[in-house]
Amino acid sequence: MAEVVPIDTVSINDAADPRLRDYVDLRDVQLRKLLEAERGVFIAEGEKVVRRALESGHRARSFLMAPRWLETLADVLEGTDAPVYVMPESEIESVTGFHVHRGALASLYRAPVPTVAEVLDRARRIVVAEDLMDHTNVGAVFRSVAALGFDAVILSPRCADPLYRRAIKVSMGSVFWLPYARVDDWYAFPELLREHGWTSLAMTLSEDARDLRELAGTPDLGEKVALMVGAEGHGLSPHWSRSADVRVTIPMAADIDSLNVAAATAVACWALGG
Amino acid sequence: MAEVVPIDTVSINDAADPRLRDYVDLRDVQLRKLLEAERGVFIAEGEKVVRRALESGHRARSFLMAPRWLETLADVLEGTDAPVYVMPESEIESVTGFHVHRGALASLYRAPVPTVAEVLDRARRIVVAEDLMDHTNVGAVFRSVAALGFDAVILSPRCADPLYRRAIKVSMGSVFWLPYARVDDWYAFPELLREHGWTSLAMTLSEDARDLRELAGTPDLGEKVALMVGAEGHGLSPHWSRSADVRVTIPMAADIDSLNVAAATAVACWALGG
Repeated sequence: MAEVVPIDTVSINDAADPRLRDYVDLRDVQLRKLLEAERGVFIAEGEKVVRRALESGHRARSFLMAPRWLETLADVLEGTDAPVYVMPESEIESVTGFHVHRGALASLYRAPVPTVAEVLDRARRIVVAEDLMDHTNVGAVFRSVAALGFDAVILSPRCADPLYRRAIKVSMGSVFWLPYARVDDWYAFPELLREHGWTSLAMTLSEDARDLRELAGTPDLGEKVALMVGAEGHGLSPHWSRSADVRVTIPMAADIDSLNVAAATAVACWALGG
Repeated sequence: MAEVVPIDTVSINDAADPRLRDYVDLRDVQLRKLLEAERGVFIAEGEKVVRRALESGHRARSFLMAPRWLETLADVLEGTDAPVYVMPESEIESVTGFHVHRGALASLYRAPVPTVAEVLDRARRIVVAEDLMDHTNVGAVFRSVAALGFDAVILSPRCADPLYRRAIKVSMGSVFWLPYARVDDWYAFPELLREHGWTSLAMTLSEDARDLRELAGTPDLGEKVALMVGAEGHGLSPHWSRSADVRVTIPMAADIDSLNVAAATAVACWALGG
C-alpha cells in the first residue's frame, strides 16, 4: 500500500524538494531527456495512462497528485509501495511548469528494453523507424502499429524516446506493451534483417519504388516483413533505402510532397495486412 | 512592391504598436481564435508557408520579419503592396510570445469560404469532419485528403479552424488550395448529402459497422462518396452515424480502442481510392 505524503507547500517554493525532482520542468524536452535517461525513469500523465503503465507491469517510483485524485486511483495505489506526494494543483503546476489537466502524475522505472534479436524472433510484421525526431510521430506510429496488427517496432539509434510523456500519450499507452528495441549498429541493420530471414520494404518517394497498391496485392511478400519508414522531412536515408529488398511508395495525388510519416505508416500497415 | 518599415524597437516595448497587433501572443489559442475571426485574417509562419499562402491567391495585410529574411523573400514582396515590418528576432519574439524558427510571418486576409453546395457540386470524394477540436488533427486530415486524391473537406460547425497557424503547418499548406466549406445546419447535413446524390460512409466503432476491407472491395459504392469522421475521443455523434448510408469500421487488432482520427482518415481514403 502506497504511503500518502502531503507535501508542505512552503518548502516547495524553493523548488528544490528532493522528493519532487523527477517532476520538474516537464515541458523542457532537453532537460527531461537527460534527466529521465540518467535516473532510469519516465513520467506517466493522467489517470488512464498511470493506470495502464502499472497494469503493463511498470514499477512506480513515486506519484504526484492533487488530493481529489487519491480516491479515483485508490485501487491502483493499494498495489504499490511507492510514496504518493499530494499537493494543491497550483503547486503542482509550479513544479512541473504546466497545468496537469488529467490529474495524477507518476514516475516509473524503465524496464529493460529487449534486444533486437529477441524482438525479431517473436515477430513476423514489424515497423522499423529511422530517426523520427518528433515524439508525436513516434507515439502515433506505435498506436497505428498496435491497432493494425503489426507485432513490434524497431528504432534507429537517433529515434525519439517512446517513453517520453508526449509519445506515451499519443500512443494511447501502446508503448507500454508493444515490443520494441533499439538498433545499435544502424549501418549493418538491413543486412541483419536479411540474415534473420526478413523481407525489408523501404517506404520512399524514389522513382524506382513500386506502388504500394500493386505490392499489397502480391501474394507472397515473405513470412516476415519489415516496413522501414524514415525521418520527417528527409525520409529514409539512402543507405537504408538502397539496402532494402523492395522500395515502395504511396503515390501522391496532388500538389503535395508526401504524407506525414505516421499517416504513411498507418496506410502501409493497413495495405500490407496485420 | 511592399514597403519595408523598420520598426523602432523602443516603441515596441509598450507592446501596443498598432501595426503589430495582428501578431501578438501567437500561442494563446483562445485569444487568437477571437482576434483572427474578428479581423478576418490568419497568420502564415515560415518562408515556405508564407510563399504558399500568397501563391494560392491570399492577399497579405502585412509582414513581420527579421532583416535577414528580406532578401530570401524579395520575389514575393515585390508582388504585394502590404507593409513589411522589420525588427530584430528577439523583438519579434517579445511580440509573438515565441521564437519564430522559420523566419517570416505574414498576416493575410481570409478569402470567402465557398458554400457547402458549391463544394459538393465540384467534388466526388470528400471527407466530412465532425467536431475535430485539435488543430494538428485538422491539418493532418487536410494533408492526407489532398495527398490521397480526395477532392474536398466539409467541416461541422464546431470543427477547429483550418487556417489556424498550427493547422496550416501540419497540412503542409494544403488548407490554402484544397476546397472546404463549413456546414451551418449540422443536424440536417446527412439528409442534404442524400438529396445531392451522395453515398455517406460513417467511420465508427459500432457493432453493426461493416469492415472497411470488405467495403473497399465493393465495386459500386456510388459515384459520389462522403467519408464522415468524428471527434477525438468520442467519435461521430449518434445522429450522424445513424443517418449515414453505411457504417464502416477499421477492425482493431489489439488492446487498443481506436486509431487516431487522422490515421483512420488516411487509411480510409487509401482504401476507398481517390
